[in-house]
Amino acid sequence: MFFNTITTMVHQLLRSYIQPGQIFVDATVGNGYDTLFLAQSVGENGRVIGFDIQEKALEEALKKIKKEGVEDRVSLIHDCHSKLDCYIKDPIDGAMFNLGYLPKGDSTIITTAETTLQALRKSISLLKPGGIITVISYYGHDGGEEEKKAVDQYLKNINEKEITVGCFSFINRHHYPPILYIIEKRKNRKK
Amino acid sequence: MFFNTITTMVHQLLRSYIQPGQIFVDATVGNGYDTLFLAQSVGENGRVIGFDIQEKALEEALKKIKKEGVEDRVSLIHDCHSKLDCYIKDPIDGAMFNLGYLPKGDSTIITTAETTLQALRKSISLLKPGGIITVISYYGHDGGEEEKKAVDQYLKNINEKEITVGCFSFINRHHYPPILYIIEKRKNRKK
Repeated sequence: MFFNTITTMVHQLLRSYIQPGQIFVDATVGNGYDTLFLAQSVGENGRVIGFDIQEKALEEALKKIKKEGVEDRVSLIHDCHSKLDCYIKDPIDGAMFNLGYLPKGDSTIITTAETTLQALRKSISLLKPGGIITVISYYGHDGGEEEKKAVDQYLKNINEKEITVGCFSFINRHHYPPILYIIEKRKNRKK
Repeated sequence: MFFNTITTMVHQLLRSYIQPGQIFVDATVGNGYDTLFLAQSVGENGRVIGFDIQEKALEEALKKIKKEGVEDRVSLIHDCHSKLDCYIKDPIDGAMFNLGYLPKGDSTIITTAETTLQALRKSISLLKPGGIITVISYYGHDGGEEEKKAVDQYLKNINEKEITVGCFSFINRHHYPPILYIIEKRKNRKK
């Protein structure tokens, strides 16, 4: 099978990209699957910094991470990803975003347009040349369409000389199929 | 670098998918790069059937293919891809389409909405369950927008229970960035 779940597809894409020793941000830890994936991908000399506003999510994520013995390379931060620049000062190799709400969690606690855009802007600003950010947008919930539009608008208008933005979607699916954005900071900035 | 030219990206995607011994169609041979790529990917027991309405294109493609010594597994057909069902009766594992005109060739000889849709429909009909079709759409030329709209409309309306259609585009690029469609026939048809 060529197509898979969007999460699996993102992991496949990133697996061929991430190098040992790199620094990645999981901007939306949620149940911790991406955090664990990143921790395993960056290896023992790498670093993963994860954010979530829900303590319960971080606790679950920590369990997963400890179970695989990779907790030494992970920092979990109980704060909004829009404040990531308060915690991260060094350039990062990449970041992952899952926009929406925590699966199986409280569906009223959602990422929102304003904080998502702040987090995206700050992540892009911290991104090394050649670094990439993946954003999966789920938008079938209340407030989801608004965030989707804001993110889409923002990404469409990023200067193409500095950043490449790719977008993948399932165009013949109904019921709000997730959208994947891939953001790459270009290595040779044209002036 | 994560992003590459769209052609390279398609080759990367297909490389991890194509198995030795498979049957692929190059619906738009053009300069033969995809034909050669497919011939090398399907191996000595595989088969590639290529179509082009321009004899010059087929001649150039044949040169490339012979140079690499893979001509035994390739059939080049000088006819419109909309007639592919006259030449192919067996199920196929996949197909590649490049919509637009032959690079460095006569830019008035273009693929058109009507024949492209026929070729796509027939390819999908011949596709094995699990098989995939890639379509790169170039539309910056006269008549290009019309074909793009027709293809987009057709693919958006394919029954999602039988076929998955993914679409990739560079959303912050100007000057008609190419669009990639990936079409997969589902293995387990839901009724």
